[in-house]
Amino acid sequence: MTPFLVIMNFCSFYNFSLYTIYLYIKLYVTGFMKKEIDPWSSDLLKNYQHLIKEFGLFEFDFKDKELDSYFVRRNIIIAHRNFEKVVARIKANKPFINMTGIASSGRVHLGHKVDIDVSLFLQRLGAINYFCVADLDAYLSRPDEKIRSLENAKKNAVENLAHAFALGIDPKKSYAQSNKPKRYYEFSFEISKKITQNTYKAIYGHTDLGKISSVLLQIADILHPQLKEFEGKMPSVTGIGLDQDPHARLTRDVMQRLSYPLEVPSFLYFSHQAGLNGNLKMSSSEPDNTIFLDDNESDVKKKISRALTGGRNTSEEQKRLGGEPDKCMVYELYKYHFTDESRFNEIRKTCISGERTCGECKKECIVFFQKMLKEHQEKYEGMLSVAKEVVFGKMK
Amino acid sequence: MTPFLVIMNFCSFYNFSLYTIYLYIKLYVTGFMKKEIDPWSSDLLKNYQHLIKEFGLFEFDFKDKELDSYFVRRNIIIAHRNFEKVVARIKANKPFINMTGIASSGRVHLGHKVDIDVSLFLQRLGAINYFCVADLDAYLSRPDEKIRSLENAKKNAVENLAHAFALGIDPKKSYAQSNKPKRYYEFSFEISKKITQNTYKAIYGHTDLGKISSVLLQIADILHPQLKEFEGKMPSVTGIGLDQDPHARLTRDVMQRLSYPLEVPSFLYFSHQAGLNGNLKMSSSEPDNTIFLDDNESDVKKKISRALTGGRNTSEEQKRLGGEPDKCMVYELYKYHFTDESRFNEIRKTCISGERTCGECKKECIVFFQKMLKEHQEKYEGMLSVAKEVVFGKMK
Repeated sequence: MTPFLVIMNFCSFYNFSLYTIYLYIKLYVTGFMKKEIDPWSSDLLKNYQHLIKEFGLFEFDFKDKELDSYFVRRNIIIAHRNFEKVVARIKANKPFINMTGIASSGRVHLGHKVDIDVSLFLQRLGAINYFCVADLDAYLSRPDEKIRSLENAKKNAVENLAHAFALGIDPKKSYAQSNKPKRYYEFSFEISKKITQNTYKAIYGHTDLGKISSVLLQIADILHPQLKEFEGKMPSVTGIGLDQDPHARLTRDVMQRLSYPLEVPSFLYFSHQAGLNGNLKMSSSEPDNTIFLDDNESDVKKKISRALTGGRNTSEEQKRLGGEPDKCMVYELYKYHFTDESRFNEIRKTCISGERTCGECKKECIVFFQKMLKEHQEKYEGMLSVAKEVVFGKMK
Repeated sequence: MTPFLVIMNFCSFYNFSLYTIYLYIKLYVTGFMKKEIDPWSSDLLKNYQHLIKEFGLFEFDFKDKELDSYFVRRNIIIAHRNFEKVVARIKANKPFINMTGIASSGRVHLGHKVDIDVSLFLQRLGAINYFCVADLDAYLSRPDEKIRSLENAKKNAVENLAHAFALGIDPKKSYAQSNKPKRYYEFSFEISKKITQNTYKAIYGHTDLGKISSVLLQIADILHPQLKEFEGKMPSVTGIGLDQDPHARLTRDVMQRLSYPLEVPSFLYFSHQAGLNGNLKMSSSEPDNTIFLDDNESDVKKKISRALTGGRNTSEEQKRLGGEPDKCMVYELYKYHFTDESRFNEIRKTCISGERTCGECKKECIVFFQKMLKEHQEKYEGMLSVAKEVVFGKMK
């Protein structure tokens, strides 16, 4: 037999056709790609540069003085889609919409705080600040074992909102997904009509009904402030992680299929704050490597003391070679949360020069976060009743 | 080569494997079955008996005096699931929930009127009568060319409700899907978490997002009256066509996965009134063979005059052999809408005996429907403002 016939008979024998083999190869390849950009995975994306290129994002290279901030200087905001529309509004002193959302998870940590800090920065630039705690989304997209019940998601939402308010988020346009005017839900159903099953499946790789619902709600979150029942048509921006880009692209696509007059939404892409052990994303599933906003002084001390640093093996080496801040999780904490720019630069400089030891650096960091969290926790208590009103009160 | 190898090589050549062939055969078979029971198709099911057996329904064989009515005697209600639970409530003089829904389609016709008549019958038996006009569902499950916009679906909903109210439906618990308290929408999202993609796909054969949304809303329609925010746990019944049974089974399945204390819902299955040309289901897509509630006197006359009858070729034959009422669409009109039982029986008897001619029968039928529709249309006008309030007013 010719080699071709051998392959053919082999295929036949194992009930494979060449087409089936092609499908397997395709599945393997797309499965591999999906691992890189699965919006529900906590795995982080190291090669930002590569992804920015691959997904057609724009690097955040605005040099405008209005945008000058440590978020930009320290590469916390790394890329964007169509943010120039928002920049034009800022320069013209005109309002724009900012949508910030957090999933109502168990506990709020420093990784969430970054999103909230950027949100407050955008508000100072003129944003009408929407803040969403995604309680329905959390309930729908997570397995029952993890979230237990919708009531539990709402209870989390109250706590999450109280943290956000304590950090400075204005309750006025803040909401829980479970407590919106009916127009919001109607809109999320309308959105479902504008996504074909093939598009959905190509992006998410599944057609799990609960997760479909949560995607619909996310898209409604981003787009609904532009409806006439809310702010009306206006440039809007949403800050997300790079790994959330599939959502962003789908949202922009859906918007253009809807018959409402809306602006194509802009997106900002953040780099994620790493975990204290160097894991690529701070996450509540690793409590030892995550600082929560309700951690007490001893938690903070214990966790930061154990954090991975960029220090050398001996103090002699440290003095001679200097520390490596870009490998250091204590430096990561400073980078994402320390707003005093001159002190921050000095820390970096003295680390690299070898003047600074990891011990004293950790000590300063511990004191900083202990003070920050203590002040925060005092404000938090006072915000619980407002937060309860947002989740369970008359909807706005 | 052996015949086996011939087949194998044939398969290989055409990129088929035996497994692929098996899949094609399976697709063909299930495609064929789907044709019989597709809930979105207007094709009708002739072999009721066969389907009742195949889908494990129960024939409607209650002999209770409370249930005695022309719906039962004339086989308009033909089958049920768990209706005995409702019968027990009726006998105990206790309330139960009845959910009646109509899709907000362009125009209400006599086929819809049957559902409304049964609903009023159940109300007299003690039902708390929910009446739903499925405007979101209509928008989501139909192509844009047909429904145009959500606003259009709502406009239809107003007219549909005004017709229902004119026929005697109480506006109190009537609603449009687009104007419900948020608990209803939240509940429909919760439902999405309880349907696996495999279950959904097995029933509907697709994962079209708009249609998924409409299924979620339908299930919420049937189940939500039992939530504590509405009537609370109670036997409930929903009347549907046999072709809607996949929805019913899914609803019963979902109910059991939800963590709320609900009764498994009961269902009544109706036979559909046929079109005037003998088509298996009266439908607004065939306006010439459908009597609409807003038809004027001349429409009624024209349509009934042209209706398919069970008459013989000549009047001589008619006298000799008698008419065939069970093949006659004029008789079908009497059967579904003529409540005067003794006159109805006389019509049947004199038709079969050959005493009655099709001409005089049609004349009586025309006069009956002209009068009925005229009276109805007068009431309809007065109900438009109430209907508008239900669709656009403060939700209940």
